[in-house]
Amino acid sequence: MRDQNEIRLAPWREKIYTVIFGTDTKAGKLFDIILLIIIFASVIGVMLETVDSVTAVIGRELYILEWGFTIFFTLEYILRLISARKPLRYAFSFYGIIDFIAIIPTYLATFLTGGHYLLVVRALRLMRIFRIFKAAKFLKESTLIVNALKNSREKIAVFLVFVLLLVTLVGSIMYFVEGGSNPEFSSIPESIYWAIVTLTTVGYGDIHPISPLGQFLAAILMIMGYGVIAVPTGIVSAELVRSDKPPSQEITCRACGKSGHMDRAKYCDNCGTPLFDHISSQETL
Amino acid sequence: MRDQNEIRLAPWREKIYTVIFGTDTKAGKLFDIILLIIIFASVIGVMLETVDSVTAVIGRELYILEWGFTIFFTLEYILRLISARKPLRYAFSFYGIIDFIAIIPTYLATFLTGGHYLLVVRALRLMRIFRIFKAAKFLKESTLIVNALKNSREKIAVFLVFVLLLVTLVGSIMYFVEGGSNPEFSSIPESIYWAIVTLTTVGYGDIHPISPLGQFLAAILMIMGYGVIAVPTGIVSAELVRSDKPPSQEITCRACGKSGHMDRAKYCDNCGTPLFDHISSQETL
Amino acid sequence: MRDQNEIRLAPWREKIYTVIFGTDTKAGKLFDIILLIIIFASVIGVMLETVDSVTAVIGRELYILEWGFTIFFTLEYILRLISARKPLRYAFSFYGIIDFIAIIPTYLATFLTGGHYLLVVRALRLMRIFRIFKAAKFLKESTLIVNALKNSREKIAVFLVFVLLLVTLVGSIMYFVEGGSNPEFSSIPESIYWAIVTLTTVGYGDIHPISPLGQFLAAILMIMGYGVIAVPTGIVSAELVRSDKPPSQEITCRACGKSGHMDRAKYCDNCGTPLFDHISSQETL
Amino acid sequence: MRDQNEIRLAPWREKIYTVIFGTDTKAGKLFDIILLIIIFASVIGVMLETVDSVTAVIGRELYILEWGFTIFFTLEYILRLISARKPLRYAFSFYGIIDFIAIIPTYLATFLTGGHYLLVVRALRLMRIFRIFKAAKFLKESTLIVNALKNSREKIAVFLVFVLLLVTLVGSIMYFVEGGSNPEFSSIPESIYWAIVTLTTVGYGDIHPISPLGQFLAAILMIMGYGVIAVPTGIVSAELVRSDKPPSQEITCRACGKSGHMDRAKYCDNCGTPLFDHISSQETL
Repeated sequence: MRDQNEIRLAPWREKIYTVIFGTDTKAGKLFDIILLIIIFASVIGVMLETVDSVTAVIGRELYILEWGFTIFFTLEYILRLISARKPLRYAFSFYGIIDFIAIIPTYLATFLTGGHYLLVVRALRLMRIFRIFKAAKFLKESTLIVNALKNSREKIAVFLVFVLLLVTLVGSIMYFVEGGSNPEFSSIPESIYWAIVTLTTVGYGDIHPISPLGQFLAAILMIMGYGVIAVPTGIVSAELVRSDKPPSQEITCRACGKSGHMDRAKYCDNCGTPLFDHISSQETL
Repeated sequence: MRDQNEIRLAPWREKIYTVIFGTDTKAGKLFDIILLIIIFASVIGVMLETVDSVTAVIGRELYILEWGFTIFFTLEYILRLISARKPLRYAFSFYGIIDFIAIIPTYLATFLTGGHYLLVVRALRLMRIFRIFKAAKFLKESTLIVNALKNSREKIAVFLVFVLLLVTLVGSIMYFVEGGSNPEFSSIPESIYWAIVTLTTVGYGDIHPISPLGQFLAAILMIMGYGVIAVPTGIVSAELVRSDKPPSQEITCRACGKSGHMDRAKYCDNCGTPLFDHISSQETL
Repeated sequence: MRDQNEIRLAPWREKIYTVIFGTDTKAGKLFDIILLIIIFASVIGVMLETVDSVTAVIGRELYILEWGFTIFFTLEYILRLISARKPLRYAFSFYGIIDFIAIIPTYLATFLTGGHYLLVVRALRLMRIFRIFKAAKFLKESTLIVNALKNSREKIAVFLVFVLLLVTLVGSIMYFVEGGSNPEFSSIPESIYWAIVTLTTVGYGDIHPISPLGQFLAAILMIMGYGVIAVPTGIVSAELVRSDKPPSQEITCRACGKSGHMDRAKYCDNCGTPLFDHISSQETL
Repeated sequence: MRDQNEIRLAPWREKIYTVIFGTDTKAGKLFDIILLIIIFASVIGVMLETVDSVTAVIGRELYILEWGFTIFFTLEYILRLISARKPLRYAFSFYGIIDFIAIIPTYLATFLTGGHYLLVVRALRLMRIFRIFKAAKFLKESTLIVNALKNSREKIAVFLVFVLLLVTLVGSIMYFVEGGSNPEFSSIPESIYWAIVTLTTVGYGDIHPISPLGQFLAAILMIMGYGVIAVPTGIVSAELVRSDKPPSQEITCRACGKSGHMDRAKYCDNCGTPLFDHISSQETL
């Protein structure tokens, strides 16, 4: 994927580049796998640090491990900066920022007091694995799903706009209906939150209607949600069914260049020329 | 979209009409976009007014803004009345009533005490954006979804009738089973509300069975709901799959009798004969 | 729909039969519509009787109305018995029993004390409307859905067996995991009830895991449920997509009688005979 | 299913083998049905033993029954060991271990104190029925479903990886947002558990956001879950639609070159030529 007129690097920087950014060499693949494992281990570490019963027992070990991970990621970040063809562009790219966010909280928490919650930011390290997945073309299967979602993007956007309008309207109406008697429906945003919880069939139950009219409206919303859930499913299903279909004949008309003819077409349906040599001219009218 | 024998308006009214009702001119489009933004801003204002912590800080600013929006909508309403070809018909049309509802609560709340909840009605302003969407043909993609829903309208109606009968029966049975021991199942309508909450898998938990038999029946209802949710999804999916297929031309080849050509076919793909008279023989190779 | 060797009824019984059981005459249709309205009204009455705040106000009116409905249904039942060709067979048929259940509770409640809950049985009157729907062939659209469900009956049965085994296993394991510390998982049936509530994504929250291991297992079950819900939906969708397809050519081969050829077939694919006259013998090899 | 060079057993062992392991003879089928019933009865017994109100009444009867089942399963296990061609391989096979687990807890509970929860392990007896189902090829219909799931295995795996990454990220962010004010979000694993409960639309409500920002993020997650649920459903639907299609014969007509004939076609439906040599010309009209 190198540019045509690419910047020449010193051989040792070139080598680092191949291992860290590349995925085609053995060393590059090995580096990706090691990185993947360390990212996972580090994220699990971040999680466990928030569990009091765990830190009570192995808090010190987690602290040491975390510094190990941070130093490893810092070295990696420096090597990436050194070996990148355009270090600044890397530093301000999406993954460059993620890489920076992955290491900075540990240092900050040392100098700043109350950096406890800041440490959680390290969980964003998880996003680093997307690069590995992407680079290694590991997930070929995902292309089909992503394409199906991309193709139905506009339909899903329309659907989301409709859902947002619906929950705003229903939320406002429910605030009007329940607001007076039910402290749970204390404001329209709260009511909209309830409408979303209900329409998506999550149904925590932290907010629920108590007046008969409110329950009646809620029941209508639920049944609508029931029908509405069919729409995105239908869109994605239809898209996946469509992408499953064998592509129509890949034969290109020799006369007009049109491709994509029907399955059993003998003649180009754009210009009438026979698509195959073996169709004798007698057959043609 | 003008009628054949349309009513002539004075030029200045004609101009207002083009801007406010029209969507084809530059000014008309700009007006639509400004209106869209003001509607959204005003609806967000209405929402925030109901949040106590917000009104404590910027309550006054919201009040002033709201009067600004109301005056804008009032002016717009008057201009619509003036420029409409048939003002009365507009005033009593669906969107005419919505436009009126969008402005009247603010005025009423000034004169009436306890108009607090009345103000919520202004959230219906949101429905005004449907006109803009509709007029601007902004959402071409929605046509496909709406058509799929329209085509499956009758199937979905049958399904809803079935769901309503099911929840009424199950609600009555559960009232019989749980009613004696569980105060939450205090009446059949309450039990039907529970059945809807359960069948749609919302499951607030505000009402739930406690007797073993009640829990057994509830479990059956849940598993049924699980299967039943497949039906509307299946209907819409099938409809969307069907509408995804390019509709094959209904033209039959005059030479070989083959029908079912591709969408833009000009020549029969079975024998190469032109499908339409207006395809000059020169076009044919 | 009369039998070949049907029982002759007296003309007046014949007339009653045509109106009550029949659906083809004007009087028969009118009777069905009136019956439908009365059934709905009576079921709404039964519901309202269970709501204390309603009976406090119009309890007496509901009581009188209920006796009106009961007398109407009783008369109708007697007329059905009189006009039925085989009265006993009718009395013990599915709808005959439903018709009987629709009237008996009101009489029993007069003589028996504590017949309060018995009255709820009258809600089963709702099932009477199925006869009207069925008889009037009112719901043509339902055939497609019912057929799709019938065709996928066996697949859905297999799926249900799998779901039942899964919830039993998961329920037992969760009783083992949570039972000691969480009083909500007090027995295996209770745990299975929880598993069903969770797998179907209803999620009341009346029973929920509190131990970390329990929550971990619950999370796995939820994600499984997420995937599992795809199966019945997929089955029904596939069935509905399939039944949507235009039936293959309705042309029957004149030589071997095979029907159901492919869309563009020219020759019977069973015996090789041309399907249409206009296929000249020259075309045949 | 015997191996080519199978081990010869003594005739009486051969006979036991046929009945216990086999499914083709009458005795083998009868044994399977009896075993199925006893497994179900024993699992129901295990369940009822955990319900205090049941054991208070028929606890003794259940205890005796359980010993009956255990002795039956022990005898069966011994017979399987004796008649198996390779007893050790059977003992350490999946079903061999399940068979052992089915009997050992009852014996252990007699010698060990506090074996109460160990007894629950007997519920795993349920897994024994899979062998019967498998052996008897009882569930032919399941093949289609299992195949559809197998074919979409990789897509579903990709989807699950995505879901896991999503809930980890969202859980971490919510711990950051809600953790300070809401004791329910006490650690990242707890927050991830909440994210799974929400994304799968189970929504117990045991953990729910209370801060406005938390509720806003939760609402976004719910609407995403709404869209995300479409993906596995779409995958399985598409797979089932695809597997529903009759696979068109891959035979190409020798005369006209047309491929893609119907399933049982004997003649090319385009030109009438026999598709196979063994179709005698007499068959042709």
